[in-house]
Amino acid sequence: MKKKITQVFSKIRSIKGIDINTANVGIKSKTREDVTIVSFKELANVATVLTKSKTFAPNIKWLKKIKNHGKAKALFINSGNANAYTGKKGYENVLKIVNKLSDIYQCSKENILISSTGVIGEQLPINKIIKSIPLIFSKKNKNNQNWLSFAKAITTTDTFPKGAYKQTSICKKKYSIVGICKGSGMIAPNMATMLAFLFTDAKLSPLQLRKMLKSSLQKSFNNITVDGDTSTNDMVSIFSVNNQKFNKTKTYNSKQLKSFQKDLDEVSIELAKKIVIDGEGAKKLIEIEVIGAKNDKQAKNIAFSIANSLLVKTAIAGEDANWGRIIMAIGKASSVVDQDKISIKIGENYIIKNGEIFKNYNENIVTKHLKKDEIFIQVGLLLGKGKSKVWTCDLTKKYIEINADYRS
Amino acid sequence: MKKKITQVFSKIRSIKGIDINTANVGIKSKTREDVTIVSFKELANVATVLTKSKTFAPNIKWLKKIKNHGKAKALFINSGNANAYTGKKGYENVLKIVNKLSDIYQCSKENILISSTGVIGEQLPINKIIKSIPLIFSKKNKNNQNWLSFAKAITTTDTFPKGAYKQTSICKKKYSIVGICKGSGMIAPNMATMLAFLFTDAKLSPLQLRKMLKSSLQKSFNNITVDGDTSTNDMVSIFSVNNQKFNKTKTYNSKQLKSFQKDLDEVSIELAKKIVIDGEGAKKLIEIEVIGAKNDKQAKNIAFSIANSLLVKTAIAGEDANWGRIIMAIGKASSVVDQDKISIKIGENYIIKNGEIFKNYNENIVTKHLKKDEIFIQVGLLLGKGKSKVWTCDLTKKYIEINADYRS
Repeated sequence: MKKKITQVFSKIRSIKGIDINTANVGIKSKTREDVTIVSFKELANVATVLTKSKTFAPNIKWLKKIKNHGKAKALFINSGNANAYTGKKGYENVLKIVNKLSDIYQCSKENILISSTGVIGEQLPINKIIKSIPLIFSKKNKNNQNWLSFAKAITTTDTFPKGAYKQTSICKKKYSIVGICKGSGMIAPNMATMLAFLFTDAKLSPLQLRKMLKSSLQKSFNNITVDGDTSTNDMVSIFSVNNQKFNKTKTYNSKQLKSFQKDLDEVSIELAKKIVIDGEGAKKLIEIEVIGAKNDKQAKNIAFSIANSLLVKTAIAGEDANWGRIIMAIGKASSVVDQDKISIKIGENYIIKNGEIFKNYNENIVTKHLKKDEIFIQVGLLLGKGKSKVWTCDLTKKYIEINADYRS
Repeated sequence: MKKKITQVFSKIRSIKGIDINTANVGIKSKTREDVTIVSFKELANVATVLTKSKTFAPNIKWLKKIKNHGKAKALFINSGNANAYTGKKGYENVLKIVNKLSDIYQCSKENILISSTGVIGEQLPINKIIKSIPLIFSKKNKNNQNWLSFAKAITTTDTFPKGAYKQTSICKKKYSIVGICKGSGMIAPNMATMLAFLFTDAKLSPLQLRKMLKSSLQKSFNNITVDGDTSTNDMVSIFSVNNQKFNKTKTYNSKQLKSFQKDLDEVSIELAKKIVIDGEGAKKLIEIEVIGAKNDKQAKNIAFSIANSLLVKTAIAGEDANWGRIIMAIGKASSVVDQDKISIKIGENYIIKNGEIFKNYNENIVTKHLKKDEIFIQVGLLLGKGKSKVWTCDLTKKYIEINADYRS
């Protein structure tokens, strides 16, 4: 399954005006690439959504400071060290990188985005990084937009590089959407973070980008859970690349952007699902859909209660049609539910219908579905029109192994 | 450790006026005892707190119906079947048991309490149960208050029976508090439930019992988590046994009840900790104390965020001083926190003090503490006077084994 997943990189068409450069700076490993610099020939429009963690990392502090700026010249990403919980010095190091990049790319500091992922609580090897920046800059264009190298260089405990690509259109004009992300655990063993970067050559304002990104997030990255944990460094950015003069940009209305939004949703969902598939120790992707809730919020709340239940996740790891655990997870979600109206389907098969065991319920058929790589659970509540779809993975011994035995 | 824990049963002094009878009815196993009937010579005063699950079991429906009654003649508990999500028939079966018991004990139906734990979604073998009740009744007094048999008969996947005992006093008069509970996972593999029953010979009104039980719960059973899951059948009851005529009872004021409350807290905490120690696959008891929060609610919220974090629980299973995960768990709790004011201690040792790594931090000493059976984590927030103490256990491969491989 994982092999097929990485075929996408050969399909990505290059987007004019983007330079991608990756290098090994020796942040953690001496051999694998750990720094990526994505730069834009002309200033790109950008929107970014950041982690809600209250113990956010210094790079997030910087992004919070500049987040309304909306223009990007370069995006710097390092793996191997999250530069999280590193105090004043950690923030000074972020500013050093910002300064160096704004010097080299001759832009305002506010046009520099910094992203970090890796171990928490250790200072960055800042001298190595600062020294490497001019060298990486001088390699510019050599890689010829190597999205695969980019996807590889930002990984930590990921077992495969993650990308997605889609051609889209606005008013019949064709555009590309490229997405690159990393993550395999909301926070990986001693490492951290879900990072995602989206790029398009459609000319969209920072405000439009922000609006559409937030809408996509609600259907993709905000709907996945591996272990219910949230990183100190999570971020998702979308860049609209300036191929021509920006002041000639036509402004699209939201109706014209409808199909773009749909395609952006699809790219985001594809990336989000890849993170779940790569969940630490995971063998199965689980899609949980809740329909008929009072509202979308209640639906998501219940879907996440199921998705985060260790007992549901272990039952699916064991390919066990243990629907009592789904009932339990619905019951514990802090929402009003009428247990006599609940329906549960696994795969295409009803188990519970309107509060009672389905008359034709056949456990063997459900068990057959549970042997697959992708599991579908649908819960109906008969309370209203609210719905939500979330993704998670099963919880296996391997997860414990990765996370308990990491340093040994 | 577990051997020492069960020694308590030999210390429990009998409380006059209570009959305990246990029997094997063949609900799940043909050999082990699975029904317990506790009856009171005179009506006891009682207060009960029930699960907040919205998919509560039929016995909980019955208890909700009678909960303000405040008088108990008999308490019926069965293990091996939670009688949860069993619809109308499940509730009819509860009423059948209630009717039979009220006939036999010649009391009003409202004086009968029913408690169930075990598999979800299966009907009780009601005929077997109804037939057994007169036989159990006729054994009355034979067991001579065998608290150990009681504790054993209500277990499901528990690996040891759980009891606690304390002598207490009100206005210099000596009383006993006996507690019996079960649970080893908020909901065990396909089984269910945390049940706890407290008994005292101190003469307290149903209202006093309710007030004190709720207060104790906030420090004990509501402060533990094994896997973050909540059962459909959870309940905690406290019974005040009527040895003499109740109408001659002196009424105590809350000042006079202070030491009783403290002792009730202690018995409840002891029982709660025993549930966590017996957490599925657990090797370690983890106490997490949050101090200096804005208020107690924030403190508990953050303490539970740490206690429920898979990454924290697996790190402790691996005896790994991975404090970055504690920082992550503090950050993800939806509370206002100033990360520059955080302090973290593991055992007696500071790791973080006021937002910075403690200057004398020695990982070896912390690792030594993590090798123990009981782990202490303290988080300081410097925001106010709020505090909370919660208990959890580590997350091991054994948990996955128990929960994923249960039916195989």
